[in-house]
Amino acid sequence: MPSHLEQLIEALRCLPGVGPKSAQRMTYHLMQRDRGGALNLARALEQATTNVKHCAKCNNFSETEICDLCASPKRDISMLCVVEMPADLLMMEQAQCYRGHYFVLMGKLSPLDGIGAKELNLDRLVKRALEQTCEVILATNFTVEGDATAHYLSALLQAQGISVSRIARGLPVGCELEQVDSGTLAQALLERRRIAA
Amino acid sequence: MPSHLEQLIEALRCLPGVGPKSAQRMTYHLMQRDRGGALNLARALEQATTNVKHCAKCNNFSETEICDLCASPKRDISMLCVVEMPADLLMMEQAQCYRGHYFVLMGKLSPLDGIGAKELNLDRLVKRALEQTCEVILATNFTVEGDATAHYLSALLQAQGISVSRIARGLPVGCELEQVDSGTLAQALLERRRIAA
Repeated sequence: MPSHLEQLIEALRCLPGVGPKSAQRMTYHLMQRDRGGALNLARALEQATTNVKHCAKCNNFSETEICDLCASPKRDISMLCVVEMPADLLMMEQAQCYRGHYFVLMGKLSPLDGIGAKELNLDRLVKRALEQTCEVILATNFTVEGDATAHYLSALLQAQGISVSRIARGLPVGCELEQVDSGTLAQALLERRRIAA
Repeated sequence: MPSHLEQLIEALRCLPGVGPKSAQRMTYHLMQRDRGGALNLARALEQATTNVKHCAKCNNFSETEICDLCASPKRDISMLCVVEMPADLLMMEQAQCYRGHYFVLMGKLSPLDGIGAKELNLDRLVKRALEQTCEVILATNFTVEGDATAHYLSALLQAQGISVSRIARGLPVGCELEQVDSGTLAQALLERRRIAA
């Protein structure tokens, strides 16, 4: 096989979820049917690698020093929502339920993968929270690692006298008791809220 | 979201099997953890697109006018094996059961996808077969389309007085060459049956 093909197959394996077989299939597809797409992808990779940095405030991907959201005067400066990934921030924005600022961890605590407090830039989060925030809302995922991250963060931030909350856990809106798993149901019962008379 | 990120997400969708969600996941992975891999992939895509052509004899991917296999004096010039894809040729070579030449269709007849005799370079196959070949061995997949392709090719080649055979149906019906073990493939080649004129 020509060596440039082999190199492309090998290079494609840097993509998550792409093994040797799919890398080969992708390579053949590109060479045979979509060389324009291949060149376009090459340019997009270079452009993104060169231009995409992290926002100095919220740590999200940004092409400017401060991202649009952090620079906006319309956002509520007193609230700081901590999410794991940029996709989580997008989900929050699409839900149109929050007008405060964000901090994107770009991951979660995962000691087995070598991701600790240093790798998540938690110093910057604490510094950012101390600047002007009244409340930090932890919106990490409700997975084992997301929960552990929230637990660690709440201790870290409360030690600095910062008020911390966690988004609610319970049944999804429109969900029936029959459909939900027992863990969620038990948690929803445990964290029940009193209805004001 | 920064526009270069959006462009990269869009560009990744030229890869087969990659939808909007995986493209986003891949983009975040590359930007966050593997910018070196992203640049490497960009270079590999450019290099392959620029350098990989088709062999003038067998139609396989090649970086030279004539590929190594076609240029080799060790190969039996009297046999020509027709396969659908480069991966099929690789499987044949790995099975070490065949020492003749190849012709790679780079596809199969598929009228619904607009792939007919012209798109498969069948003129070149006939010309190649007439040059010096004693026997053409059809090793297209045992799928509906692969069988139809073999059927069409045998009629086309026999009309030119060329002897044609089909690898034996020792492979399970509906199975693709890529999936099968070397022993089965070797047996199927050994037991190829002459197609009556």
